Amino acid sequence: MQSTDSTAPHLDPSSVGIVTPQTLHFDTPLLLECQRILPSFELVIETYGTLNTDKSNAILICHALSGSHHAAGYHSADDTKPGWWDALIGPNKAIDTNQFYVVCLNNIGSCHGSTGPTTINPETGKIYGADFPLITIKDWVKTQVMLSDRLGIDKWHAIIGGSMGGMQALQWSVDYPDRLARAVIIASTPKLSAQNIAFNEVARQSILSDPDFHDGWYLEHGTYPRRGLILARMVGHITYITEEAMKAKFGRDLKSGKFMYGYDVEFQVESYLRYQGERFSQNFDANTYLLMTKALDYFDPTRDYADDELSEEEALKIALARTECQFLVISFTTDWRFSPERSIELVDALIANQKPVSFLNVDAPHGHDSFLFDIPRYTQAVKGFLSAPLRKNTTDKPSNHKSTKEQV
Amino acid sequence: MQSTDSTAPHLDPSSVGIVTPQTLHFDTPLLLECQRILPSFELVIETYGTLNTDKSNAILICHALSGSHHAAGYHSADDTKPGWWDALIGPNKAIDTNQFYVVCLNNIGSCHGSTGPTTINPETGKIYGADFPLITIKDWVKTQVMLSDRLGIDKWHAIIGGSMGGMQALQWSVDYPDRLARAVIIASTPKLSAQNIAFNEVARQSILSDPDFHDGWYLEHGTYPRRGLILARMVGHITYITEEAMKAKFGRDLKSGKFMYGYDVEFQVESYLRYQGERFSQNFDANTYLLMTKALDYFDPTRDYADDELSEEEALKIALARTECQFLVISFTTDWRFSPERSIELVDALIANQKPVSFLNVDAPHGHDSFLFDIPRYTQAVKGFLSAPLRKNTTDKPSNHKSTKEQV
Repeated sequence: MQSTDSTAPHLDPSSVGIVTPQTLHFDTPLLLECQRILPSFELVIETYGTLNTDKSNAILICHALSGSHHAAGYHSADDTKPGWWDALIGPNKAIDTNQFYVVCLNNIGSCHGSTGPTTINPETGKIYGADFPLITIKDWVKTQVMLSDRLGIDKWHAIIGGSMGGMQALQWSVDYPDRLARAVIIASTPKLSAQNIAFNEVARQSILSDPDFHDGWYLEHGTYPRRGLILARMVGHITYITEEAMKAKFGRDLKSGKFMYGYDVEFQVESYLRYQGERFSQNFDANTYLLMTKALDYFDPTRDYADDELSEEEALKIALARTECQFLVISFTTDWRFSPERSIELVDALIANQKPVSFLNVDAPHGHDSFLFDIPRYTQAVKGFLSAPLRKNTTDKPSNHKSTKEQV
Repeated sequence: MQSTDSTAPHLDPSSVGIVTPQTLHFDTPLLLECQRILPSFELVIETYGTLNTDKSNAILICHALSGSHHAAGYHSADDTKPGWWDALIGPNKAIDTNQFYVVCLNNIGSCHGSTGPTTINPETGKIYGADFPLITIKDWVKTQVMLSDRLGIDKWHAIIGGSMGGMQALQWSVDYPDRLARAVIIASTPKLSAQNIAFNEVARQSILSDPDFHDGWYLEHGTYPRRGLILARMVGHITYITEEAMKAKFGRDLKSGKFMYGYDVEFQVESYLRYQGERFSQNFDANTYLLMTKALDYFDPTRDYADDELSEEEALKIALARTECQFLVISFTTDWRFSPERSIELVDALIANQKPVSFLNVDAPHGHDSFLFDIPRYTQAVKGFLSAPLRKNTTDKPSNHKSTKEQV
């Protein structure tokens, strides 16, 4: 799926070049955590690099809330922007496509091509809309296992993700311990805090209370909850960056140089936030936004393994006892959405289990968004971790692989 | 205005008892910073304690965003809740009504009785609505000076406020240095940060984009931007309390004990936030909310005194050189809306001017809302500061009092 065409000289030569997404169809009914069944579904994926003969060099990339399968390279010679993680994925980059076969998928429930609220429900012939079921991180991992089987990958060299992507890598390590050798969990958390949920709830209420939302059937009504989605993104965006970064970028600069005494944009930071909200609302589906924030709230890798009565710390320790891979956990000093303390909770539970884990708290100014940037200490750590031989007691071969039921 | 009636035994006996608000009318046209003129206005006030003969024991209380003139005591024997600062104001309390004559007013632009968007515009006979001009902290202080003249108080023993109330105390100290002996500035800041403005902007956009807002003429349209106001308050409320307090209070507790896989309330914290938003929306005016957040954004006590080209630190130092009172500055360790660092900026600028200032960073779990609570270290510091004799070079007598133009 990765083209060797290099006839587009303006494209960044350090990128993987032009790539073409591919759609895979899955006919096996999928039982979801909410107890509803998806009769079939499609996954859109991109791959970069070449799979080796023993299929031992494959790396799975899991995306975050607004991400997609398009993690690296360009879709055409006219493309002005590369994939969302082009800073890390490419020849000789942290996730080196000369060495590894890199797979990135769009998760179900998203709005970038895989089955979700904006795609057709084969049972009704109409778009799913508000009828699309709520999806959990665990459900996503289930579909990713089906994808692995389809690609013939018994064990991933590594599964990597930032933010909600890191939650998927963590869930993999607990649910399918023998199918990955390494997990890289970046700017993530073992669970959302009450404050995280509170911000998500404000975002959801922005959308749900928009009169153009029509209980999720806006497309049928020929409307779109644009205002709600703008507000949701504005409040989200504040939590992705830092007070310091905002200060450095905008301070109290005025758009027109003086106070206008009205409700039009006055400070540069207002202009920036409105622009971010507007742009996002043009490219994202409201039902998907609701679903994604719920998947975040629900995330709890201990759920199927630890008693409800246990403390969060004890439950996490018990769940992580199942893991068999090596971990690299990375946080960023200025991330206040999922602060370093949340990564340390995860690291502590791994250490308590004597599991192999490296932890890095990277000094970076971009807050939660830092995971998207090429910050040398961060990208070098990822590169080193992916190339280093495994420690004792871990292996690149599946030790106990039970094939899933899916027919490939 | 304070009754000595003690026939309501269920009322907290440590309170000032039953109080009656009083409305004062001001006929002098008021030129506002936005260059519009209020031809006349009314202020609703409450007073507690007794003014001494030389009028030297008066303390002015300035309220924050959602506050009012009703700071202490009860309005009737049936009242279940006392005024918003009853924890601090009363006989033998931090602001001791046995010693001091305490005045609290409702600021113009608010919605609790003083002239504002919900009151009648005398020039049109209709409610002001969206026509009510934007008000600044400096404008409020101007009206408070007119109130001082009306009450015959040349110099306040102290002016005290938390959050936006602290900004008013600070503005007083700069604009009318000889009319206060002490300023108590609690959980406040010399200026909003870009992140503060960003949160305010989300709140404003919630209201402005509500279809029931009708450009501020909702009352004329028989509607009310309830949804917008709920969202605005939800996002605000998250910033008033702390991640830790939310964790302690709600953690990840589920309302019904299990995941419902829907968009109804699932986590307790969601239920709490929605309730806070709902309750607020029933008692607050949307135009007032917009106006208050703008007053916060605009606040800059250096504006009339320091060159635009100066750094924020230099400008603050120059403006504070004018002050003549003693300062007590208090911050709270868990306040992330106006963090201790923001109070320290103010303290540093006062120290650079060799101005008398005491500073206290109080360990308290309630975040920004801490200023509303009876936290012993905090309330004892306020009490001590108000009773202590003034240091050298400061005086309880007005040194250079030029009477304002208002006829009293």
